[in-house]
Amino acid sequence: MNKQQPKPKARVPRGFRDRDAAEIAAERRMLDTIRRVYESYGFEALETPAFEYTDALGKFLPDLDRPNEGVFSLTDDDGQWMSLRYDLTAPLARYVAENFQTLPKPFRRYAVGTVWRNEKPGPGRFREFTQFDADTVGSNAPSADAELLMMLADTYEALGLARGEVVVKVNNRKLLDGVLEAAGVAIEDRLRRGIVLRAIDKLDRLGANGVRALLGAGRKDESGDFTKGAELSPEQIGKVMAFAAPEAGAGAMDEVARAVSGSAIGEQGADELKQIFALVRGAGYAEDRIVFDSGIVRGLDYYTGPVFEAQLTFPVANDAGETVVFGSVGSGGRYDDLVARFLGMQVPATGASIGVSRLLSALRARAGAEMFAVSPLVVVLSLDDVAGSFAMAAELRAAGIRAEAYVGTKRFGDQLKYADKRGAAVAVIEGSDERAKGEVTLKDLALGAELAKSTESRAAWVKDRPAQKSVKRGELVSAIKDMLVRGGR
Amino acid sequence: MNKQQPKPKARVPRGFRDRDAAEIAAERRMLDTIRRVYESYGFEALETPAFEYTDALGKFLPDLDRPNEGVFSLTDDDGQWMSLRYDLTAPLARYVAENFQTLPKPFRRYAVGTVWRNEKPGPGRFREFTQFDADTVGSNAPSADAELLMMLADTYEALGLARGEVVVKVNNRKLLDGVLEAAGVAIEDRLRRGIVLRAIDKLDRLGANGVRALLGAGRKDESGDFTKGAELSPEQIGKVMAFAAPEAGAGAMDEVARAVSGSAIGEQGADELKQIFALVRGAGYAEDRIVFDSGIVRGLDYYTGPVFEAQLTFPVANDAGETVVFGSVGSGGRYDDLVARFLGMQVPATGASIGVSRLLSALRARAGAEMFAVSPLVVVLSLDDVAGSFAMAAELRAAGIRAEAYVGTKRFGDQLKYADKRGAAVAVIEGSDERAKGEVTLKDLALGAELAKSTESRAAWVKDRPAQKSVKRGELVSAIKDMLVRGGR
Repeated sequence: MNKQQPKPKARVPRGFRDRDAAEIAAERRMLDTIRRVYESYGFEALETPAFEYTDALGKFLPDLDRPNEGVFSLTDDDGQWMSLRYDLTAPLARYVAENFQTLPKPFRRYAVGTVWRNEKPGPGRFREFTQFDADTVGSNAPSADAELLMMLADTYEALGLARGEVVVKVNNRKLLDGVLEAAGVAIEDRLRRGIVLRAIDKLDRLGANGVRALLGAGRKDESGDFTKGAELSPEQIGKVMAFAAPEAGAGAMDEVARAVSGSAIGEQGADELKQIFALVRGAGYAEDRIVFDSGIVRGLDYYTGPVFEAQLTFPVANDAGETVVFGSVGSGGRYDDLVARFLGMQVPATGASIGVSRLLSALRARAGAEMFAVSPLVVVLSLDDVAGSFAMAAELRAAGIRAEAYVGTKRFGDQLKYADKRGAAVAVIEGSDERAKGEVTLKDLALGAELAKSTESRAAWVKDRPAQKSVKRGELVSAIKDMLVRGGR
Repeated sequence: MNKQQPKPKARVPRGFRDRDAAEIAAERRMLDTIRRVYESYGFEALETPAFEYTDALGKFLPDLDRPNEGVFSLTDDDGQWMSLRYDLTAPLARYVAENFQTLPKPFRRYAVGTVWRNEKPGPGRFREFTQFDADTVGSNAPSADAELLMMLADTYEALGLARGEVVVKVNNRKLLDGVLEAAGVAIEDRLRRGIVLRAIDKLDRLGANGVRALLGAGRKDESGDFTKGAELSPEQIGKVMAFAAPEAGAGAMDEVARAVSGSAIGEQGADELKQIFALVRGAGYAEDRIVFDSGIVRGLDYYTGPVFEAQLTFPVANDAGETVVFGSVGSGGRYDDLVARFLGMQVPATGASIGVSRLLSALRARAGAEMFAVSPLVVVLSLDDVAGSFAMAAELRAAGIRAEAYVGTKRFGDQLKYADKRGAAVAVIEGSDERAKGEVTLKDLALGAELAKSTESRAAWVKDRPAQKSVKRGELVSAIKDMLVRGGR
């Protein structure tokens, strides 16, 4: 160790965070459940590297207002630029293009992995997070879209969300194209179309007036920043808004289909949705699980057909107890052009993505106690016979109880404090007195903590469930099991 | 899509790789098992980010011959250098330093995660891989080291390696320090000590003569590159080799303890090992699981005390059928200085790390068929009634069978080929003829493949287990279950 160098400051990088055991365990349970559902549908796992060559990654970031930002990049020693993946879809496109000849088609894969965004961090906005994707590549059949919608709906139920607590809202970009065409906006004007899409996608946040402004001349936000609008005429804006934000009760699919009648692309979109909903309803997924919603457009530029978004139907409160708009717990759509970048021919694809940490927050809001439960821990103090403590911990583990022998160098009092800090349910104490009698002392730490808090019922508690007792060494395991059961753990 | 841009070539970055479903599933089962063992010992999961600030990461790479290489780094938009973690120990040191006041001590955590090395890729040598670590920070008690050794031994058994198939070999760096001191090499001469350590660590690869050269003037390798040696005298070399590579039958711990007698650091090392082995043997771990081996030194510079390495005892063959030296399937040791970089005070720590892909290869070599098994898949063809195919797939899934309805747009023959390519066990066919009779046809694809291969027993096979049969639609699930059982799947 070079003593001359100044001490570095220990700090987690800006926009990144450390995650503790409770969160990791809950997330693992959630991911295992999603994986089980996806595998039952025959989707195959695929893992691609964290890095892709920058040219292969392309520019498909959600925030097209800043197309040159958003990615962590560096040059390899041979001069090639590499970037950390910002989603799991771009690497899939590269993988499919690279292995196109040998893959079964349609190719259906799921992937779960970390993605990185080189963006300004903010409260609850991190630069590293996990996505869980499922995609079907090589089929333009509406059944491929329908399958994803049903699988997503099944997933939320498998995760413990009751029927009706989450609904998958489905639309088709082609309907909006039809509306724009009917309103006299050229389909080829992709720039304007992009502004319209992103404007509608902000309906939740900005409200109808904000969106109207973005469809017209533009909008100045609270900070005074001006966003240029799509410069549609008032009449065009009226038609788009009638589609994207219909009055309550309006906006049924038949009605929308009539509105795009005469536009080839619009009619195609309506027909695709009709086929999707025929399959979905035929399989028994009712409106409380999968529903048409013309307001769903998704901000990503690369979607070409059906798009969808899963939303919670119950209010979620933040830490301050305020009800918050929760946003989507899953989304996706059809993107028929992504692989074409490599191959020069169109490869139709459709996919669904779950933002893992947001879905985990939603499950946390919905009770979900068992998902966040941690199995109780027993700490065996190590006093004058460390080997004896190791033996007791091993016995407890063999009986399926999480147990550790204290491996530090402190004495009795500090060891008890350690057990407390570890959140242990029980501490096991075998001093020389106990050993002479062939006994061990069990201290119920959870009960001890309760006793310390409430004094009124103390007598009653102590009577039924003393916070400390001595048992024969041979009864160690059964006595602790009994303590854990009585403590409801 | 900008049609003017040239098409990028789809290729996985150099030194990285894509991983398929079978490998991912096997690795997940392996990681779940390790996790279960580590959690049963009371180690808590911790996840740190992929990035650390470069100054916090330090320079603790295994290959000290190239101290400035090995890390993927970039500058953040505020000018600070960040690096992708190259192991899980350096981020742990940062985490402990940052949260020192609030952590229970000892702090025992496990971590599983991807690490990145910016090194020249080669056959089987990748720049992204997974490590599984467990560390105990804040205790210099030999019981902390002993606990890790036992936990590691338990882990290999839980993974299905029989007793005696893997052995954890333990040494203590302080013994070598004692030998060097006894041989007249100053303990403070860390540079020379480092050369000696790395020379001994190469014993497996270079043999005794190669190591002797590195302990002396130096060594020229096959490519002609010269590595400078430690420049010990022949007598010093003799003493070091007598310790690190004793003749068969020699090198027992008592003997080594006598060799370092008189050196304070050497005696301390011997005493630590004695305490560790007293605990390990007392807990019933015999020489076939944990054993002293003075030849284990580990190349990493940061180890300060006990070091260990888990090795397979059975021969492993490569793809060409040649027996290969497999290297370690787990290693670690005590490092008492790593956190000191941040805090300025010594924080004793000890840890074990498992190289996940290497251990997986070892398990693959050891039968482990069930670890690599994939549950059978049923493909329901989608002919003229897609909704009906969806219903059948859903029924099969509800019965616990992995099943998918074909969601592409091709016809019968191509759908069957698809099912074959997917490795499906059974294809379900419901054409209009079948539907009229209320039947479905089940095609046993695995059997079909066998029949195609061998003709001699064809008659016998077909008699008991026809490759294709029709059943009533209501018997779909039971008939497929029967087919899978008969097929031994």
